[in-house]
Amino acid sequence: MSPKITTELLKQLRQVMKSPKYVQEPVQAYIVPSGDAHQSEYIAPCDCRRAFISGFDGSAGTAIITEQHAAMWTDGRYFLQAANQMDNNWTLMKMGLKDTPTQEDWLVSVLPEGSKVGVDPFIIPADQWKRMSKVLRSAGHDLVPIKENLIDTIWTDCPQRPCKPLITLDLNYTGVSWRDKIVALRSKMAERKVLWFVVTALDEVAWLFNLRGSDVEYNPVFFAYAVIGMNTIRLFIDGDRMMDPAVREHLQLDSTLEPEFKIQVMPYGSILTELQAVGASLSPKEKVWLSDKASYALTEAVPKAYQYLTPYTPICIAKAVKNVSETEGMRRAHVKDAVALCELFNWLEKEVPKGTVTEITAADKAEEFRSQQKDFVELSFATISSTGPNGAIIHYKPVPETNRTLSVNEIYLLDSGAQYKDGTTDVTRTMHFGTPSAYEKECFTYVLKGHIAVSAAIFPNGTKGHLLDSFARSALWDCGLDYLHGTGHGVGSFLNVHEGPCGISYKTFADEPLEAGMIVSDEPGYYEDGSFGIRIENVVLVIPAETKYNFKNRGSLTFEPLTLVPIQTKMIDVSLLTQKELNWVNDYHQKCREVIGAELERQGRLEALQWLIRETEPLIRVQ
Amino acid sequence: MSPKITTELLKQLRQVMKSPKYVQEPVQAYIVPSGDAHQSEYIAPCDCRRAFISGFDGSAGTAIITEQHAAMWTDGRYFLQAANQMDNNWTLMKMGLKDTPTQEDWLVSVLPEGSKVGVDPFIIPADQWKRMSKVLRSAGHDLVPIKENLIDTIWTDCPQRPCKPLITLDLNYTGVSWRDKIVALRSKMAERKVLWFVVTALDEVAWLFNLRGSDVEYNPVFFAYAVIGMNTIRLFIDGDRMMDPAVREHLQLDSTLEPEFKIQVMPYGSILTELQAVGASLSPKEKVWLSDKASYALTEAVPKAYQYLTPYTPICIAKAVKNVSETEGMRRAHVKDAVALCELFNWLEKEVPKGTVTEITAADKAEEFRSQQKDFVELSFATISSTGPNGAIIHYKPVPETNRTLSVNEIYLLDSGAQYKDGTTDVTRTMHFGTPSAYEKECFTYVLKGHIAVSAAIFPNGTKGHLLDSFARSALWDCGLDYLHGTGHGVGSFLNVHEGPCGISYKTFADEPLEAGMIVSDEPGYYEDGSFGIRIENVVLVIPAETKYNFKNRGSLTFEPLTLVPIQTKMIDVSLLTQKELNWVNDYHQKCREVIGAELERQGRLEALQWLIRETEPLIRVQ
Repeated sequence: MSPKITTELLKQLRQVMKSPKYVQEPVQAYIVPSGDAHQSEYIAPCDCRRAFISGFDGSAGTAIITEQHAAMWTDGRYFLQAANQMDNNWTLMKMGLKDTPTQEDWLVSVLPEGSKVGVDPFIIPADQWKRMSKVLRSAGHDLVPIKENLIDTIWTDCPQRPCKPLITLDLNYTGVSWRDKIVALRSKMAERKVLWFVVTALDEVAWLFNLRGSDVEYNPVFFAYAVIGMNTIRLFIDGDRMMDPAVREHLQLDSTLEPEFKIQVMPYGSILTELQAVGASLSPKEKVWLSDKASYALTEAVPKAYQYLTPYTPICIAKAVKNVSETEGMRRAHVKDAVALCELFNWLEKEVPKGTVTEITAADKAEEFRSQQKDFVELSFATISSTGPNGAIIHYKPVPETNRTLSVNEIYLLDSGAQYKDGTTDVTRTMHFGTPSAYEKECFTYVLKGHIAVSAAIFPNGTKGHLLDSFARSALWDCGLDYLHGTGHGVGSFLNVHEGPCGISYKTFADEPLEAGMIVSDEPGYYEDGSFGIRIENVVLVIPAETKYNFKNRGSLTFEPLTLVPIQTKMIDVSLLTQKELNWVNDYHQKCREVIGAELERQGRLEALQWLIRETEPLIRVQ
Repeated sequence: MSPKITTELLKQLRQVMKSPKYVQEPVQAYIVPSGDAHQSEYIAPCDCRRAFISGFDGSAGTAIITEQHAAMWTDGRYFLQAANQMDNNWTLMKMGLKDTPTQEDWLVSVLPEGSKVGVDPFIIPADQWKRMSKVLRSAGHDLVPIKENLIDTIWTDCPQRPCKPLITLDLNYTGVSWRDKIVALRSKMAERKVLWFVVTALDEVAWLFNLRGSDVEYNPVFFAYAVIGMNTIRLFIDGDRMMDPAVREHLQLDSTLEPEFKIQVMPYGSILTELQAVGASLSPKEKVWLSDKASYALTEAVPKAYQYLTPYTPICIAKAVKNVSETEGMRRAHVKDAVALCELFNWLEKEVPKGTVTEITAADKAEEFRSQQKDFVELSFATISSTGPNGAIIHYKPVPETNRTLSVNEIYLLDSGAQYKDGTTDVTRTMHFGTPSAYEKECFTYVLKGHIAVSAAIFPNGTKGHLLDSFARSALWDCGLDYLHGTGHGVGSFLNVHEGPCGISYKTFADEPLEAGMIVSDEPGYYEDGSFGIRIENVVLVIPAETKYNFKNRGSLTFEPLTLVPIQTKMIDVSLLTQKELNWVNDYHQKCREVIGAELERQGRLEALQWLIRETEPLIRVQ
C-alpha cells in the first residue's frame, strides 16, 4: 500500500489557516479530530476529514497541522497501518507508549509564543476542548473555534451527507416502547433536577426512538439530534424520512397524543439555534443535561451556569443493560452468525489448499454466508481478513494492494461481524489450514488462556470492567508477551458494535460497573510484526454467578459466551492448559455442537454440520 | 469500647460556626478533614481534630457538621471501628459502597439554599478544595476558608505542637547526599521550566535533607516546609533544632558554601508570608511547583497564573525508587524484624495455651523483641494485635476495653512493623495456636493464593500497580468472597510506612508505573464481621524478571519478598493450592530458613531457630 501524497494538500491547508476569508486571525495550528458532530467512532464519508488530509483511515486518530509539522496520534491497533498510509510529511505519535507526548504538550513544545490553535467546535468534544484549552492557555496560547471547517474548504470533491430511509423496530425487538423510554428518561431528569436533555450521540437517538438508519456504514444510525424537555420532544432530522407512513405511525406523528409525547420534527441544522433559544429561556437553577463528550459548539450554546454534564448519559447506561427481548435477539443473531462461520470455515478448509482464496475473497464469502441468514442487514464493521504478516496489523482491512492469498503455511485471522435486525455480532477466530509451528501454538494457547481467564472470571457485583483486563494478559506476561489494545468493548443490540459505558481495558477510563444484561467482547491477542497475528474473540453476556459464599450479600457475576463458533483445537498446545481451562474448552465446544448443530441441521447445512462436529471433538490431555 | 459523647461539643461547634468572633458570615456546614497542614496520614495529637470532635480515631476519615447533621466518611477498613467509637449524633458514610453519597453531593442534598461551607484552608488539599468548591458553587453554595480552625476554638486542652530533636542520616543509609538531591531536583525544575519548588509533605522534607525526626508518632518526620529556588534553599522549621552541632554540620550551616547550597533557616510559621512574597516577585512565565495535594492556603499564596501543580512531586517519585544503599538497608531491617517475630511466635506458641497472653501483652512483647534489634528506633505504626472477632476490625488497635485473651480456639492476626535506622518494616501474619476449622483454613488458603498471585506476578515494565489488584482477589472472588481494602501501598526507607506514588489497589488513583527499586506491600485479606480476620502481608521489592520472550524489548518486572517470616502452614489447605503455589510456599520457606536461620544463629537465639526450622518444613501434597 503506498502512502497518500499530502504535500500539496498541507500547503493549501496552511494557506487557509492564515486566510482572513476563513479565520479572524491566522491560526498557527489546526486540529483535525476523528469524529463527526456526534463524536461517532464510525463516520460517514463526508466526515472523513482526517483521512482526507493525511491518508490514514483507521477508526481512531487525531491530526494536528502546524506551519512546520503534521502529526498524527493513534493507538496500538493502528501503528503499522498509519505508518503505511501516511507520507513523510507526517510524524506518527504512538499513543500509549511512555515517551509519546500528549497533543497539548506537543503543541506547547512546537508552537511559537502566543499562538492560536484552531479547531471546528462541532467536531471537538467539550471535555477535550476544556482539557486542551486549559493546557494551551497556561502556556500562553489560545484554542479558538473556527466556524468553517478548514478541511472542507480545501476538500473540493467532498461527498454529500447521507440521508437514507429509516427502519422501525417493534416491541418484539426492543422490549420497551419509545414512549416508555421517554418516561424513564424524564424520571432520571427529575431525579437530577434537570429540565432538558440533549441527545447528541447517533446511537442514543436511534435507541431512544426505536429507529434505525443507514447513514453511516456498519452502524445502523441516522443523522439526528433530539432535545427532550419534561413536556416536549424535539427531533432534529433532515430529508423526507418523516414522510414514510411506517415511521409516522411508529412515532404516532398523526395521532392525537398527550402533548408530552407529541414529537416536533425540526431541521437537523437548526439544533444550534434551538438550543441557544432553550439556553436563553432558562431561569436560575434550571439545567440542561448533556454528555461531556457532546461537541463544544452545542455545549457552549447553553450558558455555563445551566450546563449539567456527565461522562455517560442515562440513555447510554440504559442502552447498555439489555432487556430480555434484546438478549434473546442477540442470542438468535449469534446462532445465525455461527452458522455462517461454520459454512465459511468448512469452505476455507477445502479451498485454501488450492491456493485460490485471498483475504478479499474470504471476506466476501463470509459476507455471502451471513447475508443468507434471516434479518441480515449489513456487516457490523469492515471485515478484518488477514493472513501471515497482515495479521499483525491489528485493524487491517484487505485492499487489492495488500491482498494476500491464504495458504497452508500461514496463520489466518478473521475478525468479522454483522448487523441482524435482532442483534449485532463481532467474532474473531484464528485458524491454520496446514500445520502450525510449536511457537504459533504456544502463542495461541497463551491468548486462549487469557480469553478463558476473562470469560470464566467470577467477580462481585459492582466491579468495573477494567479490573478484569489483567486476567487476559497474565499468561502472556508470564512469558514476556503482551498486546497493545484493550481486551473488550461494549456491543450494541442491532446498534454500534462498539458502545459505552462499559468495557475491559488497562486504560483507566470512567467505565460504569458491569451489571447483568450488559454485553461486551472478550478479545485478547498476540501480534508479531511482520509474522502473524492471533486474536480470539467472543461476545459475552454478563450474567449472575452462583458462588459457594456471598460476601456482604453483594452477589457475583460472570460471563456467558453468546458467540458459539469453534476455537481451532489444532492451534492449542494442550500441555499448557490447566484442567480447568481444558474443561472450559470442551464445555464450550459441547455447547457449540448442541446449539449451532441443531440450527445447521434445521437449515439443512449438513456439510457444515459435519465440519462443526469434527471441530468440536473433546480435547484430551496426552500424558 | 463505648462511643465518645459529642452532644455538648457539637453544640459548641455549631455556636462558633455562627459566631462573628471567628467567621465573617455564619457557616451552615464545617468540614473537618483527617490531615494536618502537610496532608499527612499519621498526625500529631494537636492535629487530631476529627478524632476530638467525633471520637473516631482511625487513620482516615472526614467529618462534616451542619446545623442538623454530623456525618463521617471513612473507608472499609474502619466501618466497624467508626461505628463503635461514634455516638448517635453521627451518621457513618461508608465510602466505596454504591449508595454512599460523596461529601459534596451529600452537602448539596442537606444544605438550605445559598449556604456557606467552612473549612480550614491549611488543612484541605488544593485539589479537594477545587472539586468541592466547584460542585457546591454549581448548586448555589459557597466553600469558604475560615482562618481560625473552629475545632481549636472549642478544644480547651489541645496539646502543644511537638518539636523534637532531629536525627542525621549519612551516606551509608541514604546513598545520596542532600546536595545531590537538590541538584537532581533543580534539574527536574529546569526540565519543567519552573523557578521554585515548595516542599510541603513532611516525608519529602525529611528525605530531601537526609534528616529524620519524631514529631509524629511512627513516622520519623518533623514539622517543616522547604522552598527550593534555583539558587536558594529555605527551610522553615521551629525550635532550637538547628542549634544541634550534628545537624549544623550535616546541613553545613557554618561552612563557606556556594550560595546555591546555603540553607536559610526560617520560622515554620513564616511559610505563608514568604511564599506570598515569592508569588508577588514573579514575572510572567515564571512558575512555582507544588503538589496538587498541598494545602489550599499555600497553593493560593501563589497567584494562579504562576502555579504549576502535579499529582506527584519529583521528590515523591525519586523517593519511591530506592537506591542500592536504601535497598540493602531495607533488607537488613527485614532480617532483624523477622528475628524478632520468630522470637515472638515461638514465645506465643508456648504462652497462649496458658491463657495469660492478651492482645496488648502480645503487642508489647513484639515491641520488646524488636527493640532488642540494632538501630531500632520505634514502631512504624500502632500494632494491630487482634484475636477472634477483633481480627475483623481491619485497622484494630487493642485498648483495655476491647482487649481479648489469645486462645487456642481463635485465629490471631498480628500486623506490625518497626522503624530501624536502616529501613521500615510492615508485616502481617495470621496464626492459629490450636486447631483451625476447615472453613478457616479454606479462607486462609484463598488469601494466600491471592498473596502469591501478586508476589509471583510477572508484568511488563511500565505497568501500574492497580492493574495487579485483581490477581490478589481472584481466588476469593471465585467463591463469592472479597476484602474491602486495597492490596498494597508504597513503603518508605526509614520513613512513612505508607507512601506514594505507587500502590496496588482497585481504586483507580493516579498511581505511577512500577519500576525496579520501588517497594510496596502485598496484603490481601478476608474478614468476617464478628468472627475472625485473616491477612497475609509481605513487603516486596520490584525487581527485573527474566522471561522466555521480550515483547517490544520492554522488559518485565516481578517482586522479591523482603519480609522473610514463615506463613503458618497449619492454616493452609494444601489441596486448594496449585503445584506452582505449593512450590512458591516451599521456596519462600526455604529462603526464610536460610537467611533468618543464619541470623538467629548469629544472635544465639537457638530456641527461635528451632521454631523457624519447624515452621519452614516443606509442604507435601497428600494425594
